[in-house]
Amino acid sequence: MRMTDLIEKKKRGEPLQEEEIRFFVNGFTRGEIPDYQASALLMAICFVGMTAEETADLTDCMAHSGDTLDLSDICGVTADKHSTGGVGDKTTLLVAPICAAAGLKIAKMSGRGLGHTGGTVDKLESIPGFRTALSEAEFKAQINKIGLAVTGQTGELAPADKKIYALRDVTATVNSIPLIASSIMSKKLAAGAQNIVLDVKCGSGAFMQSIDGARALAEQMVEIGKACGRHTAAVLTNMDVPLGTHIGNALEVFEACAVLRGGGSADLREISLILSAHLIAMSQQKPYDTAYRTARELLDNGTAFQKLQEMVAAQGGDARVLECADCFLPAQMQMELCAPQTGYIARMHTQKIGESASLLGAGRAKKTDAIDYAAGIVLQKKTGDFVQKDEPLAVLYASGKEKLQAGKTRFLEALTFSKEKPALQPLCFGTVE
Amino acid sequence: MRMTDLIEKKKRGEPLQEEEIRFFVNGFTRGEIPDYQASALLMAICFVGMTAEETADLTDCMAHSGDTLDLSDICGVTADKHSTGGVGDKTTLLVAPICAAAGLKIAKMSGRGLGHTGGTVDKLESIPGFRTALSEAEFKAQINKIGLAVTGQTGELAPADKKIYALRDVTATVNSIPLIASSIMSKKLAAGAQNIVLDVKCGSGAFMQSIDGARALAEQMVEIGKACGRHTAAVLTNMDVPLGTHIGNALEVFEACAVLRGGGSADLREISLILSAHLIAMSQQKPYDTAYRTARELLDNGTAFQKLQEMVAAQGGDARVLECADCFLPAQMQMELCAPQTGYIARMHTQKIGESASLLGAGRAKKTDAIDYAAGIVLQKKTGDFVQKDEPLAVLYASGKEKLQAGKTRFLEALTFSKEKPALQPLCFGTVE
Repeated sequence: MRMTDLIEKKKRGEPLQEEEIRFFVNGFTRGEIPDYQASALLMAICFVGMTAEETADLTDCMAHSGDTLDLSDICGVTADKHSTGGVGDKTTLLVAPICAAAGLKIAKMSGRGLGHTGGTVDKLESIPGFRTALSEAEFKAQINKIGLAVTGQTGELAPADKKIYALRDVTATVNSIPLIASSIMSKKLAAGAQNIVLDVKCGSGAFMQSIDGARALAEQMVEIGKACGRHTAAVLTNMDVPLGTHIGNALEVFEACAVLRGGGSADLREISLILSAHLIAMSQQKPYDTAYRTARELLDNGTAFQKLQEMVAAQGGDARVLECADCFLPAQMQMELCAPQTGYIARMHTQKIGESASLLGAGRAKKTDAIDYAAGIVLQKKTGDFVQKDEPLAVLYASGKEKLQAGKTRFLEALTFSKEKPALQPLCFGTVE
Repeated sequence: MRMTDLIEKKKRGEPLQEEEIRFFVNGFTRGEIPDYQASALLMAICFVGMTAEETADLTDCMAHSGDTLDLSDICGVTADKHSTGGVGDKTTLLVAPICAAAGLKIAKMSGRGLGHTGGTVDKLESIPGFRTALSEAEFKAQINKIGLAVTGQTGELAPADKKIYALRDVTATVNSIPLIASSIMSKKLAAGAQNIVLDVKCGSGAFMQSIDGARALAEQMVEIGKACGRHTAAVLTNMDVPLGTHIGNALEVFEACAVLRGGGSADLREISLILSAHLIAMSQQKPYDTAYRTARELLDNGTAFQKLQEMVAAQGGDARVLECADCFLPAQMQMELCAPQTGYIARMHTQKIGESASLLGAGRAKKTDAIDYAAGIVLQKKTGDFVQKDEPLAVLYASGKEKLQAGKTRFLEALTFSKEKPALQPLCFGTVE
């Protein structure tokens, strides 16, 4: 088999066979196929696409390119949740405890934030003492004992995906739905859970800007999951406005706890309940409405909050901070940001809001940057709200004046005002099952 | 400027600016842009194409990436001829002396054969003593003195094209009309002639299989030539059947001489006159018909043959062999190949005929292979001829039995027979000026 023939075949628009995809993935991972041939193939895929079968084959090859987590020694039904990333997206901190409270075994590997989006590992590390580097044995033991664990990646999962993604990143081949779908799903498959709910974000703060694009991605991921024998569903959710009001690591943990304790933002609460209900319904084979009621009950009666406290304690974190904003959020500099004009907020360009939080110190421009757990934004107004000139819009938190100024400038760039009240988009654009 | 942004821009279908193309060509040639980014861009170009302006910019950048030949010290009008390559294509051996006889200064750099097509350098080297490695000074001096010279490449012409072509060859990105056009034209521009005639072959023995593809390539090359200030024209010629009857290095020199001496194949004579007439008309600003008559006269009265003899002598070759088949073609093994059935020859798959000659020893599978100048094929029947079973079709020449057998097998694979007389294609499908 010759790599040039494979590239030529794909370029002509013909689907690759399973053994051809395996030849590419294994050869490239082992360093036998050079980068320049891999990038030519990836670019051809960007133009021609891949069939459902090809995408499933690619995902399967990448999932089996390194370590895979065997969750068969976990008693109960294993479940996992993945979000394509957004701004203010702290749903894992709600969905994991709600579903664990419902009896699921939540085995969740999370990443760190990069660019304008945050990562659950960073958020949890804002809790003093919290350990996100569990060994595989610790991870499984904790899930067996209390029903949930969130860790950084254990072992070397899907190294082929890692290598292919690094090449895509520098060859403008990131933006291809089958490549995105297979990249995400290869890691989910390697992570071992039987039930997977995907939160596919769409809008100005998300990777997918259009609903059509987000739906296509969701459909492909669900199809891959099913083809590889996992129960999989996806929810298309709105990321054209930040989720909730708090953006930044400690701030997001704080807001998640607020919802778990009966307060917090309505949008964050609702999306978390929808995602939880899908995961419960799928894992326990219940009707969605029953599952939704279960999730709401477990949230409202405090059981879910108790699960989060148990998890934080199990992973060495100081669970007391979850009930006490003052001992959690260290004092630092803050700035009230006021409306530059009177009118409705017609739009918040959500990627720019995320960049603003990153400039304040909450995120990383590159992987090796340090982050400031206390930095971030608390929104007081969101898209659709009417404001008077000089009325407070948000409070920014950072460790210094320069960062506050940089965050403010970017935040204001994100805003569009109008005289008319804008039509509001729904929270959720549908589900793919 | 970042290479990923350029790739992304081209992927979106937007044309690149001149400075962006320069950034890529220069950066890649200097080794600053890695192969994997170059191949991703080239693949995107295969799908999206390039505008006329982009193609001209790319050609110009590649043409100026190394040495360029300055022909301004040649007295007279300089002219060059290029063929996209075919089987039995020995037109340079006719066009160069005819046009030199007409007073043009023919400055021709040629290549060696590879795969199923031959190269003029190899053909000329079959003449005992002939030198194809002239220095730039020798090349120019000879053109000034006798009006023509054919040499291998002097200096390092268009190294960017060489590097880009090598990458295209291993990434399935050869087959793109703007990339082919810019590759050919960058070398022609660097070689310095003011007037260029292009012989764009089309059919089963050519790089372009379809007339539409050949016309598109011809149009782009002519457009580039004109945009870069050269008089340029292209002729679309039939390569769905070998040109003339002789295939193989010494055999082709022999056939060219036969035409120059008033005999030989009618198709070879006609195509050579057409190409010569276009080059003379363009260079001397004469009507085509006048130029054609001039070319025919110079061929018929022996002046053109005399020019070839002068050139061979000037380059150290034994010009006596041009008049004497026996002292030119060394005795070796030969085999008469007979018709396997009765009927019309409906088709000769011309690439396979070229491969047959190559298997006999006339060509190279890879650049470092040695070739047998005397090996090859003399056709006795061609497409459209009626043959009886066991009637001779061709004579094969090689240095041994195994080669004869391999050549025979491939030759027979090329043939299709029919009961009906096939419709014959024209020699020439048109011109692009």
